[in-house]
Amino acid sequence: MKIDGTAYRSVWADPDDGWSVRIFDQTKLPWSLDVLRLTEVAQAAHAIRTMQTRGAPLIGAVAAYGMCLALRADASSEAMERAAALLGATRPTAVNLRWAIERMLTRLLNTAPAARVAAAYDEAQKIADEDAAQCAAIGQHGVGLIEAIAARKPGQRVNVLTHCNAGWLATVDWGTATAPIYLAHERGIDLHVWVDETRPRNQGAALTAFELGHHGVAHTVVADNAGGHLMQHGEVDLVIVGTDRVTRGGDVANKIGTYLKALAARDNDVPFYVALPSTTIDWTIRDGVAEIPIEQRSPVEVTHLTGRTAEGGIATIQVTSPGSPAANPAFDVTPARLVSGLITERGRCAASEAGLLSLFPERR
Amino acid sequence: MKIDGTAYRSVWADPDDGWSVRIFDQTKLPWSLDVLRLTEVAQAAHAIRTMQTRGAPLIGAVAAYGMCLALRADASSEAMERAAALLGATRPTAVNLRWAIERMLTRLLNTAPAARVAAAYDEAQKIADEDAAQCAAIGQHGVGLIEAIAARKPGQRVNVLTHCNAGWLATVDWGTATAPIYLAHERGIDLHVWVDETRPRNQGAALTAFELGHHGVAHTVVADNAGGHLMQHGEVDLVIVGTDRVTRGGDVANKIGTYLKALAARDNDVPFYVALPSTTIDWTIRDGVAEIPIEQRSPVEVTHLTGRTAEGGIATIQVTSPGSPAANPAFDVTPARLVSGLITERGRCAASEAGLLSLFPERR
Repeated sequence: MKIDGTAYRSVWADPDDGWSVRIFDQTKLPWSLDVLRLTEVAQAAHAIRTMQTRGAPLIGAVAAYGMCLALRADASSEAMERAAALLGATRPTAVNLRWAIERMLTRLLNTAPAARVAAAYDEAQKIADEDAAQCAAIGQHGVGLIEAIAARKPGQRVNVLTHCNAGWLATVDWGTATAPIYLAHERGIDLHVWVDETRPRNQGAALTAFELGHHGVAHTVVADNAGGHLMQHGEVDLVIVGTDRVTRGGDVANKIGTYLKALAARDNDVPFYVALPSTTIDWTIRDGVAEIPIEQRSPVEVTHLTGRTAEGGIATIQVTSPGSPAANPAFDVTPARLVSGLITERGRCAASEAGLLSLFPERR
Repeated sequence: MKIDGTAYRSVWADPDDGWSVRIFDQTKLPWSLDVLRLTEVAQAAHAIRTMQTRGAPLIGAVAAYGMCLALRADASSEAMERAAALLGATRPTAVNLRWAIERMLTRLLNTAPAARVAAAYDEAQKIADEDAAQCAAIGQHGVGLIEAIAARKPGQRVNVLTHCNAGWLATVDWGTATAPIYLAHERGIDLHVWVDETRPRNQGAALTAFELGHHGVAHTVVADNAGGHLMQHGEVDLVIVGTDRVTRGGDVANKIGTYLKALAARDNDVPFYVALPSTTIDWTIRDGVAEIPIEQRSPVEVTHLTGRTAEGGIATIQVTSPGSPAANPAFDVTPARLVSGLITERGRCAASEAGLLSLFPERR
C-alpha cells in the first residue's frame, strides 16, 4: 500500500546488499517512518518481541527472514533449531509465527547445509509474496460486503468499524481487515472507517489511522468504548477485524476488546466479519476461550503511554494513579457464535468447522 | 472517605470564611491534590464545564454552591435566573445538575431577597449532606451483593469491576458504585476491584484508582478492552457502575463504554448493577437510547493525553496519528434489559418502571 503516494511493503530483503532485512520500526509510528536494517537473528527476535514489527501475518514473514539471518551465520541443523526456538518464543498467541518457522524448518532440514542460505531466502520471499497475494485475495472476497451495503444506501457513506491494526502494516501488504477497505476505496465507494484506538498499545490510533490517512481513506479515531454507542445509533454498517488465531470451530483470538465489539455488533444486528489468511487457522483446537493461551504483557503498557509533545519531541507519561497496579491481557477470544463470517483467501465462510472445511476440504 | 488516613468530602464551604467554596481540582489528580477556592458563580460554572469537578451527583452540589456565590454578588431574581442558566448549560447529560438548580430556585424564589444568601447556603449544605447520606444508604443496600458472593466462595477474594469514577470524588462522599465497595472493605471482606481505565478521560485510571489506593482497597487498573476477557475467565464476580441518568424505564446513561461491559456481563452471567441516588432518575423519559442527549466532547480528549513524565513534570502528548480526526461521544445508554438491578438509597430494585415505582411509589 501507499504512504503519501509511494508503494511499500512492511518487510523486504534489502535490494542493495541482497540479504539484510528491512522493516519499519512500528514503535516509532506514527511519529516517524524509521526503516530498520536487521542483520542477525537476535535482532529479528528482538524486533518481534518488542513489537517493532507486529501483526500475526507479518511476524511470520519476519521470523522467516530471521531464519535466513541465522543461517548466514551458521547453517548447521543445530543452529537452525536454536534460531527456530528463539524466534518461536518471542510471542505466544499468533499461530502464523509457528507456522512460518515450521515451514522454513521443513524445507531447510531437507536441504544440504551448503544450499540452505539460498533456500532460506527463497522460502522467506515466497512466504512474503504468498502473504501479500493472500491479503489481496481477502480483499477480493471481502469487498462484496461493502459493495452490497453501498448498493443498499445509495448516496450515503458506508461506515466500517475496525479494531487494532489488521492493516498492511500488520501483514506484508494490503492487510487483512483493511484489504476489503482498500479495495472498496480503489473502486470509488464512499466509505469511512471508525478506527478503535485499541488500548493499551493504541495500534488503531497510531497505525491504522496512519495507514488509512496516508493512503487517503476517510476515517475517524474513537476510544474503544465508543463502538457500542455508534452501533446503537446506526453509525456502523459493518465491523471487520483481523485475528491472531482462529480455531477449527471458528472461535477468534484477536486484540483485547474485539469480543466486546462482537457483542455490540450482535446486539445491534451489525455484521461482524473476521478477515484472515488460512495460515491463521489453528486446526488442532476447537474451543478458543478454553484453549488459546492469552499473552499477558507488561503492565507498563497500561500505566504509561508514549506520544508527541506540542514541541515535537517524543515523551512517555504515566496515566494511572501512582502505586496502582495494572494488568494487561493482550488478546481475547470471540466465540464463533458472535461472528457473522470469516473472509479468507479462498472466499467467505461461516465461523464454524463446517464453514471452514467447506473452503479447506483438505483439512477434513 | 479517606486520603491516606484523613477524611474528606469532595465539596465544602470553607469553614474559615464561611462562604467560599472548596473543591479538589480533579483535572490535577492523581498527580497532585490541589484544593480550589471558588468565590464567583463563573468559577463554579468553569469548574463544572472543564471537569475540575465532575460526577453527576457532585456537580449538582457544586452547582448549588455556585448559586450561593451568585446570590452573594446579586440576590435579585433576575441574577438568580441568569446564574441558573449559566450553571445549567455547563454539562448536558447529567440530570442531577438540573435537579439541584431547580431545587435551589424553588426555595430561593420563595425567599425574600434579603434572606436569600443565607437560605442558599443552607439549601446547598442540605443538598450536599443529603447526597452523602444517600450514598451511605446505597452502600448499605448494595453491600449485601458483595457479602453474598463472599459467602459463596469462602477464602476467596471477591472481584468487582467498575467503569469510570462513580466514587466519592464523583459525589460528596462514599460514591455511588463505590459505596458498597467501601462498606464491604470496612466490614473486612477480602475484595479486589478491576478498575477500567475509562478512555478517553481516564477517570478510572486516574480517579478511581487514586481513591481506592489511598483508601486502602485492593485494585488493578485494566484497559477498557479487558473486561470481557476477564469475565469469560471467571475473574469478575460482580459489576457495579454509577450513572448520569436513569430513565423511568430503567435505561442507564453512563460513561461511554458502560454498555459494552453490560453486554459482556450478560454474556457471562455476571451480575451487572447500577448504583444511583434517586436524583439521577429522569421520570420524564422512558427510552434512554432514543431520548437521552449524548454529550459530544472535544476530539482533543481522544487525540491527546496528559500524565506525568519520568522527571515528575506533567506533560500532554498526542497519541493519534497526526491529521487523523477523532470523535468523542462521552456517554452511552445501557438498555434496562442488560441491567441486573439498580441500587438506590431506598433499596435495590429491578431496572424497570415497575421496579423503580416499587421503591418510589410517589412517582406513580
